[in-house]
Amino acid sequence: MSAVFTTRLTERFGLDAPIVSAPMAMAAGGRLAAAVSGAGGLGFIGGGYCDADWIDEQFSEAGNGAVGCGFITWALAEREAEAPGLFDAVLARKPAAVFLSFGDLSPFAERAQAAAVPVFVQVQTVQGARDAAQAGADVIVAQGSEAGGHGASRGTFSLVPEVVDAVGARALVLAAGGIADGRGLAAALMLGADGVLVGTRFWASDEALVAPGFRRAALDADGDRTLRSSLPDIARGLKWPEPYTIRTLRNAWTDHWQGVPGGPASAQAQAGYARAVADGDAAGAPGIAGEAVGLIHEVRPAGEIVVRMVAEAQEALGKW
Amino acid sequence: MSAVFTTRLTERFGLDAPIVSAPMAMAAGGRLAAAVSGAGGLGFIGGGYCDADWIDEQFSEAGNGAVGCGFITWALAEREAEAPGLFDAVLARKPAAVFLSFGDLSPFAERAQAAAVPVFVQVQTVQGARDAAQAGADVIVAQGSEAGGHGASRGTFSLVPEVVDAVGARALVLAAGGIADGRGLAAALMLGADGVLVGTRFWASDEALVAPGFRRAALDADGDRTLRSSLPDIARGLKWPEPYTIRTLRNAWTDHWQGVPGGPASAQAQAGYARAVADGDAAGAPGIAGEAVGLIHEVRPAGEIVVRMVAEAQEALGKW
Repeated sequence: MSAVFTTRLTERFGLDAPIVSAPMAMAAGGRLAAAVSGAGGLGFIGGGYCDADWIDEQFSEAGNGAVGCGFITWALAEREAEAPGLFDAVLARKPAAVFLSFGDLSPFAERAQAAAVPVFVQVQTVQGARDAAQAGADVIVAQGSEAGGHGASRGTFSLVPEVVDAVGARALVLAAGGIADGRGLAAALMLGADGVLVGTRFWASDEALVAPGFRRAALDADGDRTLRSSLPDIARGLKWPEPYTIRTLRNAWTDHWQGVPGGPASAQAQAGYARAVADGDAAGAPGIAGEAVGLIHEVRPAGEIVVRMVAEAQEALGKW
Repeated sequence: MSAVFTTRLTERFGLDAPIVSAPMAMAAGGRLAAAVSGAGGLGFIGGGYCDADWIDEQFSEAGNGAVGCGFITWALAEREAEAPGLFDAVLARKPAAVFLSFGDLSPFAERAQAAAVPVFVQVQTVQGARDAAQAGADVIVAQGSEAGGHGASRGTFSLVPEVVDAVGARALVLAAGGIADGRGLAAALMLGADGVLVGTRFWASDEALVAPGFRRAALDADGDRTLRSSLPDIARGLKWPEPYTIRTLRNAWTDHWQGVPGGPASAQAQAGYARAVADGDAAGAPGIAGEAVGLIHEVRPAGEIVVRMVAEAQEALGKW
């Protein structure tokens, strides 16, 4: 495939498609990242909560190819305070980029820059975009509330052009949140983005590390059937800072716990949640997916998703 | 101006631009509606809470031209139950269309159809879109949470294509929420919409019935500075049904009342709110605006806004 959409992103990173897979914690392993990069996009391993062994393993699964690695910034800061070394070890691999979300990026951005590794920073507000540009981010991902997983409240549709206006002269800008097909890619380009970050669509790919039960629940759901809450974080005992919440499918579990003050904080509730996650039991824990789930009707190979998104975007643009 | 963007909307309604102004209660009077229609779009009077005299006056202001009239459906139902006649009186004017939002549309959709007046229905979920198509809506407006004023939680970016997929074969689909410039128009067309509904951008036009103080506050705000809440509804004693909340600017008043259980429900708080609204005091009441406020930097004539949006959309598409 030769580049159909040449953007600042494809030029800067030598891509054939301006499509980046989100570093979804636990779900985005090396096989997914490598498949996306192999199809002409840019794939990220979801380093998430910083399990060094898991990250090593996933880089091996990726064949140590041209993939990036993402982190939850506040979790990375905690980890580096307790046992320094993980971030340097990842930088030493010369990944295609590192991706920082949710927290103070400045110490890590500087270290990545010193190692000549490009820095993607995900933000949820125009103020966050200004801060990221100030800290020297190479690529700023404007993430709308539609996104699956952690995020905040602003919608993708006006956040993206406002971020482009605020920082587009200093950094590349990607649109994230609600993008699952080529219509979304074409729309993001119209809003001024240099490309898209795609989560849920790749979460429902062959290569993602997602249990079949959660996948099935997602394919069955329409986009009305998600919510942002802190319930899964409470159930995992994770101390996520404000203002971040996590978008999941709605199910019997979320319906129940939404009505219980304090949420699933007891040892019993937490054990039940962990068991459901381990078992792939989509009634006992909600799948982590975004509003774009309503646009996804089958699990496909990640590489095919990249190619199809490009073709659909061409088709959408071709009409005009 | 000849039609640059020919969509099912422009063909069906004989427009030059696939741009519709939102029937913003109290703010969208006849002058605004006429200016939008005059520039090739379709303008709506904001019939809102059903003040018959005000609606009459605004049709006169519009020169009884080709404009539509919008209603808050639950308020219209209450009004018709108490004193029938308003809806028939509006239909008798043969407006370009009626626009129904927030409530059970079926009784009114049928009456409009009997009078051969096209029906726009605004929805916030894909299920709402299915219901509206079932009830015979001609045009379904998929409104994302970014929108100013009343709305719900889903984001524009994935709601629009999902609604297109669900009902696009039976009804026209407009995108609403977060659209304030030609980039947004082009993006909406990529997502499969037949056109756009624009609120906040026209709220900040010369012709809108908005006090200067509120306008100034909006021009100064970025898109991070809004919130969805029920505070203004509590302060007005309006009993809005679930799940609808109202997006306004954040200001000292919303910051204060967000921390007070029950909100501004006292007679004193309500009187203070009413006084601030009457005085155009943007510290004592919040302006009703959407997240797209961060894309708006000056008040312009509504007709110029229509023409400029079309030119900007052409420019965005021209790059590809």
